[in-house]
Amino acid sequence: MSATDGRVVAECTRPTDVARGAQAIVAELIQLSRDCIARVESENPGDEVIGIGIGVPGPLDIRRGVVLLTPNLGWNDLPLRDLVSEGVGLPTVLDNDANCAILSESWVGAARDARFAIGFTIGTGIGGGIVFEGRLHHGISDCAGEIGHVTIEMDGRPCGCGNHGCLEAYASGPAIARRAAERMKPGSILASLVDSDSSRITAETVYRAARQNDEVALDTVHETARYLGAGVAGMLNIFNPDCVVIMGGVTGAGRELFEPLQREVAERAFRPAVEACRIIPGSLSGMAGVIGAARAYLDHVGAPR
Amino acid sequence: MSATDGRVVAECTRPTDVARGAQAIVAELIQLSRDCIARVESENPGDEVIGIGIGVPGPLDIRRGVVLLTPNLGWNDLPLRDLVSEGVGLPTVLDNDANCAILSESWVGAARDARFAIGFTIGTGIGGGIVFEGRLHHGISDCAGEIGHVTIEMDGRPCGCGNHGCLEAYASGPAIARRAAERMKPGSILASLVDSDSSRITAETVYRAARQNDEVALDTVHETARYLGAGVAGMLNIFNPDCVVIMGGVTGAGRELFEPLQREVAERAFRPAVEACRIIPGSLSGMAGVIGAARAYLDHVGAPR
Repeated sequence: MSATDGRVVAECTRPTDVARGAQAIVAELIQLSRDCIARVESENPGDEVIGIGIGVPGPLDIRRGVVLLTPNLGWNDLPLRDLVSEGVGLPTVLDNDANCAILSESWVGAARDARFAIGFTIGTGIGGGIVFEGRLHHGISDCAGEIGHVTIEMDGRPCGCGNHGCLEAYASGPAIARRAAERMKPGSILASLVDSDSSRITAETVYRAARQNDEVALDTVHETARYLGAGVAGMLNIFNPDCVVIMGGVTGAGRELFEPLQREVAERAFRPAVEACRIIPGSLSGMAGVIGAARAYLDHVGAPR
Repeated sequence: MSATDGRVVAECTRPTDVARGAQAIVAELIQLSRDCIARVESENPGDEVIGIGIGVPGPLDIRRGVVLLTPNLGWNDLPLRDLVSEGVGLPTVLDNDANCAILSESWVGAARDARFAIGFTIGTGIGGGIVFEGRLHHGISDCAGEIGHVTIEMDGRPCGCGNHGCLEAYASGPAIARRAAERMKPGSILASLVDSDSSRITAETVYRAARQNDEVALDTVHETARYLGAGVAGMLNIFNPDCVVIMGGVTGAGRELFEPLQREVAERAFRPAVEACRIIPGSLSGMAGVIGAARAYLDHVGAPR
């Protein structure tokens, strides 16, 4: 839970048990919100919780507060905003989770001095968000910022979105794992980390093996930097932002990823765009989405007088 | 020359003789402006020319009024704004020519009802521009909108920008001609249009041959639609605009290009983004740049009281 200045004042978490279905998850979300509100108000006498902001995977209809489709959660046309609002008794706002992440970084995080900030959230997929002068660009039907779904190979790998050759199909966590698995060598450090079972490789294993100089893992990290570099360079040429923030698990690779990424961007983008832009990891890590959802609430509903 | 409501009130043109150098071109530009102003003011008693807007190939420094680099014209750090302003005695504003094109379409042309308009200008290169709620997005150092320079093939054809695999390297006028030339068949309609000299093929020849059902020409047009489709789909996923305007010579291909282009976009972009967006040719043809430059002037300097 975040204050109106972006400070986190309380944290209550519970894993999402997808198998239990939308209704059960919503009920749990409502209970979790009530518990968290009770805790905050008892620990901070005089403070009041004014509303709820929720970051969810898109696509959404923000005006109607509806989650249109979330392949990973199996939701379909779910009126999440009104369900939570009625359940908790507070005004509620939905926004895309990747939008919330860059919104928070631009509010109180790594991009707080930036006029034009572009966020890449790299995890199971590649999400994105665009913040111009402190405000999210949602587009005409709330689905802007899908920067993981730009074509970087015309006839490339199939992508979860139904298209092929998308950035996400090459540089998301599972895509990194897949590329490493395809080339894993028997007896290598990478193989030893997964007991020679390539299906157990994750992006995290790849980074660990790369830090131990495993050849395939190092190649995979450098290749990832090239793919991401092409994607980021495109954003520099399109938006000419002063800040690109890379968020999510992949940033765990650290310098091993960021240095070749920055080199690739410098090779691919226009010089004035490269010189004007910092490419940096997020600074709010796990809390970016939560803080951003609070800010999305303030932007939609406003702070109390 | 355009009125403050976007109407064209006079037109004076002269071809640019690049070989004569920047100084000669600037002198000619000043003389041309004086002639045009004199004509307008004598033909429209009581009217007054208030300023000059110039659309030039980027990259520019708009605040300083300097053309940083134009490979095609051979200009380098040319303070064009002040040179013209001092020569003519009127306030002057520079903007990128592709920016001017979509700005005019969004002001009085094909995109005049759009909230978020993205323009592709396809000619010798592929330029672009982004208009959000009537205003151009210039980015932090005036080089936003270079949507021809996004990677669509990681290790693709070399591009004039120094990168490789850019959209421009596949779908600009010269790139279309090059792809057709590589595959021209002896004795074909395409070959007959250029007296069997493949170096004489232009995009225009390719469209002409395609209209006569030349196989290679038809394949080239359809391939162009695929490449452009990937580029346009990327813009839909990134911006979720309500209008994409395709401008420049390539629009001469008409339905032969637009139909497969729209199909490719529908296949590659998210459904809510596809459903919300019109993809249409520009309506101001040769005058788009001029009208847009006038509008850029009004946006920078303002109209007189």
